[in-house]
Amino acid sequence: MNDRNVAVIFQPSGRRGRVEVGKTILHASRELGVAIESICGEKHTCGKCKVRIEEGFFERESLISRREHLSPFAPEESKFIAERERLSGYRLACIAELRGDVLIYVPEESRGGKQVIRKAARELPIDLNPGVIGYYVELPRPSLGDPLGDFERLHQALKKAYGLKDLSIDYLALRGISVKLRAAGWKVTVLVWMDREILDVRPGRVENFYGLAVDIGTTTVAAYLCNLASGQVVITDSMMNPQVTYGEDVMSRITYAMMNPADGLKRMKEAITQGLNTLAGSTANAAGIMPEDILEMTVVGNTAMHHIFLGIDPQHLGLAPFPPSIHRSLDIKARDLGIQIHPAANVHVLPIEAGFVGADNVAVLIAEEPYRKDEMALIIDIGTNGELVLGNKQRLVSSSCATGPALEGAHIKFGMRAAPGAIERVRIDPGTLQVRYKAIGQELWSDECAPGEIQARGICGSGIIEAVAEMFQAGIVERSGRINGSIPNSRLRKGEKSYEFVIAKAEETSIGQDITVSTSDIRAVQLAKGALYAGAKILMKVLGVERLEKVILAGAFGSYIDSERAMILGMFPDCDLQNVCPVGNAAGDGARVALLNREKRKEADRVARQVEYIELTVYPEFEREFTLAMHIPHMKDAFPHLKGILKNGPFEKGTDR
Amino acid sequence: MNDRNVAVIFQPSGRRGRVEVGKTILHASRELGVAIESICGEKHTCGKCKVRIEEGFFERESLISRREHLSPFAPEESKFIAERERLSGYRLACIAELRGDVLIYVPEESRGGKQVIRKAARELPIDLNPGVIGYYVELPRPSLGDPLGDFERLHQALKKAYGLKDLSIDYLALRGISVKLRAAGWKVTVLVWMDREILDVRPGRVENFYGLAVDIGTTTVAAYLCNLASGQVVITDSMMNPQVTYGEDVMSRITYAMMNPADGLKRMKEAITQGLNTLAGSTANAAGIMPEDILEMTVVGNTAMHHIFLGIDPQHLGLAPFPPSIHRSLDIKARDLGIQIHPAANVHVLPIEAGFVGADNVAVLIAEEPYRKDEMALIIDIGTNGELVLGNKQRLVSSSCATGPALEGAHIKFGMRAAPGAIERVRIDPGTLQVRYKAIGQELWSDECAPGEIQARGICGSGIIEAVAEMFQAGIVERSGRINGSIPNSRLRKGEKSYEFVIAKAEETSIGQDITVSTSDIRAVQLAKGALYAGAKILMKVLGVERLEKVILAGAFGSYIDSERAMILGMFPDCDLQNVCPVGNAAGDGARVALLNREKRKEADRVARQVEYIELTVYPEFEREFTLAMHIPHMKDAFPHLKGILKNGPFEKGTDR
Repeated sequence: MNDRNVAVIFQPSGRRGRVEVGKTILHASRELGVAIESICGEKHTCGKCKVRIEEGFFERESLISRREHLSPFAPEESKFIAERERLSGYRLACIAELRGDVLIYVPEESRGGKQVIRKAARELPIDLNPGVIGYYVELPRPSLGDPLGDFERLHQALKKAYGLKDLSIDYLALRGISVKLRAAGWKVTVLVWMDREILDVRPGRVENFYGLAVDIGTTTVAAYLCNLASGQVVITDSMMNPQVTYGEDVMSRITYAMMNPADGLKRMKEAITQGLNTLAGSTANAAGIMPEDILEMTVVGNTAMHHIFLGIDPQHLGLAPFPPSIHRSLDIKARDLGIQIHPAANVHVLPIEAGFVGADNVAVLIAEEPYRKDEMALIIDIGTNGELVLGNKQRLVSSSCATGPALEGAHIKFGMRAAPGAIERVRIDPGTLQVRYKAIGQELWSDECAPGEIQARGICGSGIIEAVAEMFQAGIVERSGRINGSIPNSRLRKGEKSYEFVIAKAEETSIGQDITVSTSDIRAVQLAKGALYAGAKILMKVLGVERLEKVILAGAFGSYIDSERAMILGMFPDCDLQNVCPVGNAAGDGARVALLNREKRKEADRVARQVEYIELTVYPEFEREFTLAMHIPHMKDAFPHLKGILKNGPFEKGTDR
Repeated sequence: MNDRNVAVIFQPSGRRGRVEVGKTILHASRELGVAIESICGEKHTCGKCKVRIEEGFFERESLISRREHLSPFAPEESKFIAERERLSGYRLACIAELRGDVLIYVPEESRGGKQVIRKAARELPIDLNPGVIGYYVELPRPSLGDPLGDFERLHQALKKAYGLKDLSIDYLALRGISVKLRAAGWKVTVLVWMDREILDVRPGRVENFYGLAVDIGTTTVAAYLCNLASGQVVITDSMMNPQVTYGEDVMSRITYAMMNPADGLKRMKEAITQGLNTLAGSTANAAGIMPEDILEMTVVGNTAMHHIFLGIDPQHLGLAPFPPSIHRSLDIKARDLGIQIHPAANVHVLPIEAGFVGADNVAVLIAEEPYRKDEMALIIDIGTNGELVLGNKQRLVSSSCATGPALEGAHIKFGMRAAPGAIERVRIDPGTLQVRYKAIGQELWSDECAPGEIQARGICGSGIIEAVAEMFQAGIVERSGRINGSIPNSRLRKGEKSYEFVIAKAEETSIGQDITVSTSDIRAVQLAKGALYAGAKILMKVLGVERLEKVILAGAFGSYIDSERAMILGMFPDCDLQNVCPVGNAAGDGARVALLNREKRKEADRVARQVEYIELTVYPEFEREFTLAMHIPHMKDAFPHLKGILKNGPFEKGTDR
C-alpha cells in the first residue's frame, strides 16, 4: 500500500481494494473481480463500459471520491457519453485513469454478470389464488332505455357472471373505463384486486397478467416476476441493495438515518425505490412485458428494511424496547410509494413480528408452515441479520441475532455475492489437501476443466461455509478456528497478518490472484455461526426442547447450503441430517406465496401475531453460549448425528477435549 | 364601435365590451364594471393593480389576444413585476394602454370585490356527525415488557376509549406517527375518517379541525370552510369557474374536450383543480389556518363538472343515451386529485343521478329532503343548467333543462355575478315608473342614499328576475316579452337594436353609464324561465300531479329570489306563495350537509338511486309547453294564487287574451 496506490470501491457489488495510480477503471475492475462489459477489447469503440463516479465523503468507507480523481474527460468519451451524462459523472471505464480515491457505480447495463438467486423456481405447493384476478365479461351496450353508468354496468356484469359484490374502483382506473369499454366493444377482462377493487379493464380476453414478489434483504434484493394467471415464476432477478452505500448492516443504516435527520431516511428510501423500479423494469423487459403489466407487488424484508422502504423513520427500532411503527400487513398504492408498475397497482407489505423479526421472517414462516406441523423444527434464516424460529403447531418462538454479512460473502477477503464466478462448492482431500471446487456459471467442477476455463472471481456464502467445514475436516483448521500453520503444503502459507489457505490458484481465476481463506475470514464465519447456534440454544431452553427434529436452513446466500457441512461447522445443534433441509431464499418464497395466494396473507397476519419474540440479550446465559459456540462445531455439545463423519472433534456428549 | 375601439374581456368575471384605444386597462375595467384594486390612485406607486394578459385565440369570444396589443412594458412596472411574472404576461393595469383586443385575467389578489354567496350561514338543522372526528387518547409508553408497535398501541387506545375497531391508517400518516407520538408525550388527538382510517395524529387535545364543502357550478364555484368540531361555517368564498375560458355552458365544455383530445380535458381539469386550491388557500388564510388543516373536502357539481373535476372524459355525456362514467359516490385521496389540503385527506364526491342530473342535484335533495315529506314539492335549482325534481316520499322524478346562464347574470348586457355593486333588488312604481333598487354591498336602497354613494356596477341573477317582473307589473313589458315603446318616460328609450329601460342612471354607477334592461335581455330570461316551466309541466304530467303544494327555489344567483316576482315572471306553475321557498345555494348546502353528517352521505347514495330521471326531449309535448311558457307568466295557465297581485294578465283559467 504505497502512495502510488489509490482506494477504489465498486458499487453496487461493494468490491473494494487498492489499485495502482494510472490504471484504467476497467483494469481496476478486473483486479478487484468486478465484471464490467467490454466488447471491443478496450479499443474505445463499443461504449459498453460506462460507469458513474459518485462524489462525496463516504463515511463507512473512509473515502473521499471526486470526479477530478480521474484523468480528464477525453474527447473520445463524448462519442458515447452525452453532455447530461457527463455532468452526472459518467465515464468510460476503458479510458478514465485513476488519479485518486474513487467510488465507482457500475450501472445495470454495464455489468458483466448478474447475481444468481438459486432455485428461484423452487416448486412450492402453492394453491393459485392470487391477489389480482382477471374476469372476462361481455356487457350490454347502454341505450335510452338502459342508460346506466359505465361503472355500474360493469359491476352488474361482474356480479352476474362471478358473484362479485361491493366492488370499488381505483381512481386512475375509473378515469379510463368509459373510453376503454367502448374501444373494446364492451368485451373486456376486468382486473380485480382481492375481489374488492377494479384496477383496470383490458380489451378482450387477457390470458396473462403479472405480479412481482420482492425480498428486500439488507445486502441483496431479490425479485420474482410471476404470471398471476398460471402461478409460474417467469423471471428472477436480483441486485445489491443500493442502500449499502449508507451502511452495511441494519444498525448502521438506522444510525445513518439518525445522524442525517434532514435527508438520510429520504435518500435511503429513494435508493431502494429506485432499486425496485430497476428490478421491475429489468424483469418486465426480460419477460417481454411492460412494467405497467405488473398489477401487484408483495414485499418482505426485516423491520428496518420495511420501515425505510416505507419512508418510516427507523430510529426507534434502534433503541430499547425496539417497537416498530406498525406490525400489521399493509396495502399501499404503488404510486404513493413511487413504485413504477401499473398505476393502480397495490403493494402488499407483509406484517412484522417484533422489533428485529420482520416481514422477511413471516414470509419464511408462511413458506415453511411450521405452525401446521407436529415436529419440533428450528428455522434459521441467514442474512446480514440472522433470524431464528423454533417450534411447531403448539407454539412458536422467534429471535434475531446480528450475524453480519459474512455468510452472504461479505467481510471475507475474497467474499462476493452469488454471481457468476463465485465459488459455491468446495471439497478438500484430507490426505493430499487437494482442492476441488465449483463456481457459479460453470457446469463442471474445477478438476474437470482446464484452469483457464474456470474464471473464478471469489467465494459466495455457501462456498465459505463449505470451505471452512472442509478445512476443519482436513485438519487445516483447528476447533478454535486457528489455521494450523505447521502442515506442509503449498496451498497453506503465511499471509499478511495470518495464515491463509489457497482455494483457487491465480491461473484459475479471472482476477489474476489466488483466492484464499484466511484466519480472519474464518473468524468472521465463527462469529456468525456462533451467534446463530447460541440463539438456537436459548430458544430451545425457552421451549424446554432437548433435541431438534428438523432444521430448515434458509437464506439468499447463493446455492443451497450443504446440510452436512453446515452441521460440521456448528451452525446449529445436532439433528438427524436427513431432517436438515436447505431451502434457499425462503423469505423470497414467502413473498411469492403471498403474491399467488391471498389466503396466505391472512395466515401471515395470524402467525405474525402468534409468534412470541424472545429478546436474546435479556438472557444472561446467551453470552456464555455464544462463547462455547464459537468453536467448530462447538466447545461442549455433542453431535451424535455426525458420528462417523466428524473427523476432528467430539460427536457425543462428554467427549469434550 | 369604430376602429378606435378594441374588444376587452376581463376574466374571471367574464365582463366584456369595447373600449377606446389608448385607455389604460384600469380605465377599461371601470368602464366595464370590473373592480380592480388601486390604492394609490394611479400614481403607479402601490402595484396593487397587477393583471395578466392571456394570449391566444378565444373561440367563444371571437377574440385574438396578444401581449403586443398593449403599450410596451414600462420601466416603472418592473418595480412591481418580477421578470418571471413579466414573461407570464403580467402588467400594471394603471400603466398598460390598449392597442388591440385583449383578454385580461384579474388575479384574486388584485380583485376589488369578492362574489357574495348569500346566506352561506343558512341555518340548516344538521346533526353534527362529520366524516372526520378527532379522538383524544393517552397511550402507555412502550417498554421491554410491552414492546407493541406504535400503530397497534394507538389502535388499542382508540378501541378502549371509543370502541373504534378495524382502523386502517393512511400511508402518509403512518410515516409520521412514531415521531409524532413521542414528540407529543404519547398524548394526542387522532383524526379519524369515517371511524375507518387514521389521517393524522396531533399533539394534545385539538379542539378545532376543518373541512371544505365545495359546489362546482358551471359558472360559479362556491366553497364553505367549516369547523368540523363545531359544525359552524367559518368562511365562505367563491370564484368564477376558471373553466369558463373553455366554454360557458356544459355542452360547450364537453365539445371543447372532444375537439381537443390531446389536452382539452387535462386543461379543464387543471383549471378547476387550481381553482379549488385557490379557494382552499383563500378560505384557510381568512380563517387563520393552513390548507393542511383541512381534513376532508366534499364536492358536488353537475355530471359534466363532476367528470371534468375527476379527469374523466365527458364525451359520452354529450351523446344519447348520456350515460355517466359512474353514478355512485366516491372517496378519493386529495393527493391523487392534486388537491392541496391535508396530504392524507379524502375528497368525498357525491353521487350522480343520471346523465345531466348530477351530484349538485343530489346535494339539493339531501339539503331539502323531499323524500321525507308528504307534500308534492317542485324543486328548481337554477344554474347554467336548470335542474328540476318533483315528488314526495312516495316517488321522485327529476329532469334537467338548458337554461343558459341568464339567471346567473350572464348573457345579459349589464349582467354580472353576485359581487359588490350588483343590483339584486328592483322595485318599479307602476304609476311614475320610478325605480328603486338595492345593490350588493349597500345596506340602503338607492332612494335612501346620494346617487354618488350607490356605485352600482351591473345586475345579478336575482336582480334581473325582479327587474323583468316589475317591468311587467308596471306595464313596461308585455306578456310576449316586448317592451312597450309607446310609454312616455325618460327611463324608456330606443337603444341600439331595441327598446331599453334604465334601472340605474349613470351618476349612480361606478361604470359611468346607465344600467339598462333591454328587449334582448328579457328574451334571455324568457328562454330560461320558459324551459324551467315547461320541464315542470312535463314532470307534473309524469306524476299525474295537478297542483304544486310547495316550490323550492335554489341557485347561487346572488340573494334569494323573491317568490312573488319569480311567480309573476312565470318561472314555475301556480302555487300558494306561502309555500314558495327560496333557499339560495342549496347544492352548496348539500355539500355542507354531507361534510358535517356522514349519515347524509348514505342518504345521498340512496336517493340518487331512487330518483327517476325523465328525459324531457323524448316528450313530444315539451316543445309546445316551452312555447306557451315563454309568455309572462304563461300563455294559457292560470295563477289563482296571483289573484289581486298580477296587474297585467290572467290569473284564472280561461281568461287568456
